[in-house]
Amino acid sequence: MTNRTWEGLVFIGTSVDGQVARSDGSLDWLVSRGETAGDAGYAEFMERVDVILMGRATYEVARGFEPWPYEATPVVVLSTTLQDDQDDRVRIERGLDEATEVFNGMGARGVYIDGASTIQSCLEAGLVDELTISQVPVLIGAGIPLFRTVPQDIDLTLGRSVVLDGGMVQTTYRVTHD
Amino acid sequence: MTNRTWEGLVFIGTSVDGQVARSDGSLDWLVSRGETAGDAGYAEFMERVDVILMGRATYEVARGFEPWPYEATPVVVLSTTLQDDQDDRVRIERGLDEATEVFNGMGARGVYIDGASTIQSCLEAGLVDELTISQVPVLIGAGIPLFRTVPQDIDLTLGRSVVLDGGMVQTTYRVTHD
Repeated sequence: MTNRTWEGLVFIGTSVDGQVARSDGSLDWLVSRGETAGDAGYAEFMERVDVILMGRATYEVARGFEPWPYEATPVVVLSTTLQDDQDDRVRIERGLDEATEVFNGMGARGVYIDGASTIQSCLEAGLVDELTISQVPVLIGAGIPLFRTVPQDIDLTLGRSVVLDGGMVQTTYRVTHD
Repeated sequence: MTNRTWEGLVFIGTSVDGQVARSDGSLDWLVSRGETAGDAGYAEFMERVDVILMGRATYEVARGFEPWPYEATPVVVLSTTLQDDQDDRVRIERGLDEATEVFNGMGARGVYIDGASTIQSCLEAGLVDELTISQVPVLIGAGIPLFRTVPQDIDLTLGRSVVLDGGMVQTTYRVTHD
């Protein structure tokens, strides 16, 4: 694996049953319960982020946000199908190797990895170093799960776990790389 | 629904990706990480338990334990296939309605609901009142998930969340019944 200048950082909200969104991508269950937690440490987290990596599906949701929420931070979108020049707010890369090269070339230190599918790919590729998971108190059943299969056990080390307003439990883990 | 004398209580360990066991039922990943947490509040929890309800699959694992760990507490096993008199340490019931009647007849106050499938059935039937989930710091990928689909969102209220030795995060929720 290429050496990295950067750490891969995940910061994501889930239901207690581990979904990041309903099957149609909607986040009503999260937003309604998460808002009393304020920014839930997001601004502090973003201070460590030099660039955002998201998958195509997450981008398709984010591109509709008004205003574009990532004005201050470069965004790389992983996609094999999107055209390079279709949105000048983002840079399209075709795979994790290409994205890794971009981040290294930037001298990035912190890469915010977003979207369940991209998080999963990065976990499998050993590119995730830290996971902050904010669980809101609801079971939604069906949806898009944060975690799927992994090739082998991935050992975590607890950083901290805090209770935020509204009953959100926010836990940070470091990933142990073999 | 029949009135209940009792509350349905869940007390279970999971990986961070929400599995209660590997696909073959093994708990090595949990035991190895959970032991530094001591009994993790189990004895205190059991003081509130008058009877245990478990599914057939969980029973098939538990029946091999030496010594039988539930000497002090009656055990009801949900099964449509086991014979009534095949193990005098447990009582077999065919469904949740029958089990509910048994618990009511005992004047039970606390019922410990164990096993992913039984927990799921009880959640769907509105029989779970409290969930204590102890997450150990590992992703195991495949396995038996604690949660599956639910007919509609199940609203939870955070009770408490504590960090135990070994990086276990133990969180208790109350279930909001509509």
